[in-house]
Amino acid sequence: MRKVIVELGERSYPICIGDNLLADSALFRSHIPAKQVMIVTNQTVAPLYLDRLMACLDGLSVDTCILPDGEKYKTLDTVNTIVTRLLEKRYGRSSTLVALGGGVVGDVTGFTAACYQRGIGYLQVPTTVLAQVDSAVGGKTAVNHALGKNMIGAFHQPLAVIADVSVLSTLDPREFRAGLAEVIKYGLIRDGAFFDWLEQNLDGVLKGEHETLVYAIERSCRNKADVVAMDEKESGPRAILNLGHTFGHAIETGLGYQDWLHGEAVAVGILMAADLSCRLGWISREDVERISRLLARAHLPSRLPGALSPGRLLEIMAVDKKARDGVMVLVLLEGIGNAVVTDRYDREKLEATIKAFSTLQEIA
Amino acid sequence: MRKVIVELGERSYPICIGDNLLADSALFRSHIPAKQVMIVTNQTVAPLYLDRLMACLDGLSVDTCILPDGEKYKTLDTVNTIVTRLLEKRYGRSSTLVALGGGVVGDVTGFTAACYQRGIGYLQVPTTVLAQVDSAVGGKTAVNHALGKNMIGAFHQPLAVIADVSVLSTLDPREFRAGLAEVIKYGLIRDGAFFDWLEQNLDGVLKGEHETLVYAIERSCRNKADVVAMDEKESGPRAILNLGHTFGHAIETGLGYQDWLHGEAVAVGILMAADLSCRLGWISREDVERISRLLARAHLPSRLPGALSPGRLLEIMAVDKKARDGVMVLVLLEGIGNAVVTDRYDREKLEATIKAFSTLQEIA
Repeated sequence: MRKVIVELGERSYPICIGDNLLADSALFRSHIPAKQVMIVTNQTVAPLYLDRLMACLDGLSVDTCILPDGEKYKTLDTVNTIVTRLLEKRYGRSSTLVALGGGVVGDVTGFTAACYQRGIGYLQVPTTVLAQVDSAVGGKTAVNHALGKNMIGAFHQPLAVIADVSVLSTLDPREFRAGLAEVIKYGLIRDGAFFDWLEQNLDGVLKGEHETLVYAIERSCRNKADVVAMDEKESGPRAILNLGHTFGHAIETGLGYQDWLHGEAVAVGILMAADLSCRLGWISREDVERISRLLARAHLPSRLPGALSPGRLLEIMAVDKKARDGVMVLVLLEGIGNAVVTDRYDREKLEATIKAFSTLQEIA
Repeated sequence: MRKVIVELGERSYPICIGDNLLADSALFRSHIPAKQVMIVTNQTVAPLYLDRLMACLDGLSVDTCILPDGEKYKTLDTVNTIVTRLLEKRYGRSSTLVALGGGVVGDVTGFTAACYQRGIGYLQVPTTVLAQVDSAVGGKTAVNHALGKNMIGAFHQPLAVIADVSVLSTLDPREFRAGLAEVIKYGLIRDGAFFDWLEQNLDGVLKGEHETLVYAIERSCRNKADVVAMDEKESGPRAILNLGHTFGHAIETGLGYQDWLHGEAVAVGILMAADLSCRLGWISREDVERISRLLARAHLPSRLPGALSPGRLLEIMAVDKKARDGVMVLVLLEGIGNAVVTDRYDREKLEATIKAFSTLQEIA
């Protein structure tokens, strides 16, 4: 088992990465302070891994809350449902929630833990690549509102993240590859050597070779942990984690959060950020090609969805960002392994990038 | 204007207490970091003070959200309503909420600020005695759940508390007096000299004499600020603030949160805690009499409501506390000005106290 510590003073915690951790009863027990434990999971994950986790927590007082699967259940209503269950079972302030699932389960469980009786502890047990390398790490929790994603939430760090890499074997291959967009992101934003390593080892990762996969997840988590330790509440440097996400969110919004997975939208967003950086003269066209090739090897998309015109995308991005005093800040690249958060770019070059990625010929 | 600082490192903030602060535009402006401000208030307070506050914030971009009046609106649904308004108006992370009202408005606005986009700033502008001396100070925010009060919330400190004592002149006299239960509480738990002062000056407070009232509120806030600074998240010493509240909450629950005001229930609770402390030999019967006389001068009740039997009260208290591993911890007195948090009391003496305060003759 590998261990990465997220250094946040008294809120520090480990990310444990390895094989068959869902059988490691001692590991789980060491991070659960009292007897009352509620596992929150969903209808897809429960049949696969709930029994295994229950067995692992044998001896504790364990309840379960099984949610329907899907982003549309990441709401205040679901928080209320979990709180009802907690109160019916008289869960106290020393009790623990365990989030067994992907990003949605982790976000909604984490936010419930943040506000139940003004805050109880929780464990993240991520079951997707995306959750293991990104959403389960760093304490950002939230639910969606009808008018915006992640608009109601809290910074609330987990007691530990337990990433059992074995569970990824049952993950849908498309979900698996979408998660790799975030892995590649870490190389691009601050770890050029990791990008090089991925160029050498992506095939092993894609094949699920044990050691290679554990290493890719560990190194991703190490990068995320470092960034979170620098800027827990995203007042500055943490924003580099959003490489590709402003474009990506606009794609997701434009498609009504259907058809494309988050990681797929982020992959195109990363490529667009690279393209714009190149148009600004900050990175070479060869760098863009390297990024494009690596994303393509992970079978990630490289063009905007056909349904989305350049004009519409720009419009969504502008609305999305108006919330922050009208300035559209982007994460761009000054090199592979070197991202910057900036609003110093030509609007025309941004438009040129968007048009270049469109499959439509409309003039924005 | 008097100022009390709540010392919490980078989360420190002032409580400003004085006359006509709702006309002090510079004071408000100094605590509002950006242009976007939403005032949250209710239908009772809005006709009285909203225009005044709006005028005071002239030059900023101000919206309002007027809630129905009442504890039953302290819910997640109301949080969702406020968030909808914020998103419709494109409020960003640097915007500010202003809670203009009593405890309900303060609690729900504070919790909304705690979770909107993972946390924005807010000002407390309390308009009741209870809110000025207690609920607006210390960052405990929450909404109720059908199965329990304040079960969903956060610790989220305000940017400042602005307590305009002039607004208390329009407060319902019964509400005014109920708030004094919390004022008297501060004398009892940690400030015996303040209790003595209240014995000398309660009539002036009741008459609303300006200087006397400002002093009572300032000294109450100073006590609360000290306790909060010691134990922001209620891991220990802060619990002394709950003197009278375990009994009080049981009374409120027993009455379905109708008929009695919170401060009235707390007043009887304080007296019951004093009586039990006397039965345990920790304070004298004369001390109990002093407490009883002071509460009576504020026209606060001294017996349990007729509708509530001793057995029922005990049952509610036990259920309330089962959430914390079965131990019923109470705040009791070892002297006037000296409270302790303890479970070292005889169950029989507790029952004797409850029976002594009942207007019924039922054997529990």
